[in-house]
Amino acid sequence: MNKPTIPKGTRDFGPDVVRKRNHILGTIRRTFELYGFQPLETPAMENLSTLTGKYGEEGDQLMFKILNNGDIFSAAQQAGNSRELVSRVSEKALRYDLTIPFARYVVMNQHELAFPFKRYQIQPVWRADRPQKGRYREFYQCDADVVGSSSLLNEVELLAVYDQVFHRLGLRGYTLRINNRKILSALADRCGKPEQLTAITVAIDKLDKIGAEGVKKELAERGLSGQETAVIERFLSIQGNNEEKLDRLRELFAGHETGLKGIEELSYVLHADLAARHTVPVLDPTLARGLNYYTGIIIEANAPATVKIGSIGGGGRYDDLTGLFGLTGLSGVGISFGVDRIYDVLEALQLFPEAGAASTRILFLHLGDDSIKTAFPLMEALRDRDIPAEIFPDPLKLDKQLKYAAKRGIPHVAIIGEQELQENTVSLKNLETGHQEKIPQAQLANRSF
Amino acid sequence: MNKPTIPKGTRDFGPDVVRKRNHILGTIRRTFELYGFQPLETPAMENLSTLTGKYGEEGDQLMFKILNNGDIFSAAQQAGNSRELVSRVSEKALRYDLTIPFARYVVMNQHELAFPFKRYQIQPVWRADRPQKGRYREFYQCDADVVGSSSLLNEVELLAVYDQVFHRLGLRGYTLRINNRKILSALADRCGKPEQLTAITVAIDKLDKIGAEGVKKELAERGLSGQETAVIERFLSIQGNNEEKLDRLRELFAGHETGLKGIEELSYVLHADLAARHTVPVLDPTLARGLNYYTGIIIEANAPATVKIGSIGGGGRYDDLTGLFGLTGLSGVGISFGVDRIYDVLEALQLFPEAGAASTRILFLHLGDDSIKTAFPLMEALRDRDIPAEIFPDPLKLDKQLKYAAKRGIPHVAIIGEQELQENTVSLKNLETGHQEKIPQAQLANRSF
Repeated sequence: MNKPTIPKGTRDFGPDVVRKRNHILGTIRRTFELYGFQPLETPAMENLSTLTGKYGEEGDQLMFKILNNGDIFSAAQQAGNSRELVSRVSEKALRYDLTIPFARYVVMNQHELAFPFKRYQIQPVWRADRPQKGRYREFYQCDADVVGSSSLLNEVELLAVYDQVFHRLGLRGYTLRINNRKILSALADRCGKPEQLTAITVAIDKLDKIGAEGVKKELAERGLSGQETAVIERFLSIQGNNEEKLDRLRELFAGHETGLKGIEELSYVLHADLAARHTVPVLDPTLARGLNYYTGIIIEANAPATVKIGSIGGGGRYDDLTGLFGLTGLSGVGISFGVDRIYDVLEALQLFPEAGAASTRILFLHLGDDSIKTAFPLMEALRDRDIPAEIFPDPLKLDKQLKYAAKRGIPHVAIIGEQELQENTVSLKNLETGHQEKIPQAQLANRSF
Repeated sequence: MNKPTIPKGTRDFGPDVVRKRNHILGTIRRTFELYGFQPLETPAMENLSTLTGKYGEEGDQLMFKILNNGDIFSAAQQAGNSRELVSRVSEKALRYDLTIPFARYVVMNQHELAFPFKRYQIQPVWRADRPQKGRYREFYQCDADVVGSSSLLNEVELLAVYDQVFHRLGLRGYTLRINNRKILSALADRCGKPEQLTAITVAIDKLDKIGAEGVKKELAERGLSGQETAVIERFLSIQGNNEEKLDRLRELFAGHETGLKGIEELSYVLHADLAARHTVPVLDPTLARGLNYYTGIIIEANAPATVKIGSIGGGGRYDDLTGLFGLTGLSGVGISFGVDRIYDVLEALQLFPEAGAASTRILFLHLGDDSIKTAFPLMEALRDRDIPAEIFPDPLKLDKQLKYAAKRGIPHVAIIGEQELQENTVSLKNLETGHQEKIPQAQLANRSF
């Protein structure tokens, strides 16, 4: 028999990892709720008609498609090529992100929902990416979005959510950067190449990796003239504090309606002075957020530079998201947390709380039937006080039972041997300090563990 | 554009439903932890080699298989039939239950785990069953298992977990029934038809639906003689309290080693007097638990008879579960909660707590920039006290903002108009009672909502 394996790019999460992940997810969930976001869960499977074409050609390739049940053989035989074959034997695929299912849900339930609809969603998604360090084929997304409101107060609140979550997780030194896609759009205009907006966005998105020279070179290859790339270069060189950057941008886009609108939106959010309780957002005109469908303000959260992990969250505003499903005129804005990366950051900075209260605090040793009969009500009393307790179920030698406690990281052991039974006492051993003491059984109810 | 839909047999869970489900799942999760079970999460996808053949022919049919990525056309062309086609274009499937992935995990991690390994797992599974009322193609399973201990204390503890969970959920009048597969095995022996154990188990499993006559008829069709079905009939007629049933069983299986062992196990668990804090388990010799792989004690939890929902949980002991993956000699015992049915029970009996604290308690109205600037720090102070608060983001007419609060079920509204701004006050309106009052802003911090 072969040793069993799991599909590449997937992971088992054992007890310690689940607890740490739940620490992150629970903090995010609670913060979302404190800011008025409501939970939504959608099915793992969506119809292919819902997903296809929503993530570009690459997305269609990387979607995990589900084979139809029943006899697919004859259907398959009529296919002339791979694409036809897929469409004949599959009509569902696994969720690829949480945004399209959210849009689909809003359209399906538009008459019941209260708008603006503020929802959060924390569920796994699946992508057939090539697995590599830090990139998995199954991973959690963790999104909060508002749909049906174009108010910039939503951006302010979402920045505050980032601020709160990272603060509650104990993270210090992270950065929140913001920009506006309207400015990138104005930049393409100012270059005289509005049709190259995507190419310009993609090139600027690589600034960190290839530098300003690299961006210029890539755009030159795309057919931008020296004069045109000079505009880009001037844009990329904008420096200073938020106010200085806003001033430079106002100069650069003087008279350009969309550009100025983008600048005013940024100015409002930065001046609102409402979000920044712990970390002031930084205006970064070169923030691009890749190929996403954003049309307004965009946001990116980065880990402290010391851990070299980069982006731990991002989001932005997208006009007309539900238009994909026929419901037009609803503006949306949302943010996402990168759970796997936040996990790595907290691990690197040792910010996870001690395993602690969630797992078993005290193990009762198995010392025969009388001992067990005495132990059970004591255990139940501890559990009633919300203290996890367990009994070793088998009558093994004491050293084996103690070894189990040590391996599990259970800090306390309760011993009710013959002497304790006679005295109505219980001996408590602290496995961390080695300290042992004997107390009346009745006192166990007042002890903390 | 067609109105979007979701795959049949799947569900969206909106905010209210998610909150109610989390009430159930959170109660179960916390109880599992109080009894020393540790969380495990496994991938949604497993290799087909892990799953195939583990759930019978039907299971293999009902598994959702994942299409391989890349060009599957040429692979498909070499297939001579449907089964070959599936094996050529698919190598993964969606999780069908949580037990096989658990066994797979234990075998893969056997050298790191502390045994007995007590794990719980709460995740969705997928089955291509024909959708019908109460049966879905995506549903959560909710399991706790112990592997590596043959002690009956585990059964006792698992019964206590049922008792605790249902009690904490406010459920009264549920029943816990137990039996032992060893007794059914002995029954097949006593009939002289040990090779018909499965048929006998399946027939007895239908007792509720087809009655004792139906069971006899079905077994007669299977080739049992009148004398043989008479043994079954005598067995099915066992009545009385637990003690009387144990006595009758001891008579019936006198001298039968396996039968008597099964009876002694039941007697131990029933006499342990440890589990039954609220509900005493009932011995039911006719409990069979269908086609599962149980070999020892079996357990079933049933909803109160008034709601006619039937089984809301079940479990039992299975020897040698990990043997499927080459690790022999580990006995396992586990239980499962039927989340969807428990949901229906709590709904029918109106046992869900008020929507309450989890969702927004107070909405600040949008009354212009100065109002907002005043509202934000007040909102943050409420959130710091763990009270969910939000602001209506758009400057709409007041009645629209109030309508939003009503539709969302937000009980309180905070109004900071021109007068309140001058007075440093805030008007609070309780939307449930209609009561309105004005208080100093500083007092908001001491209010409960």
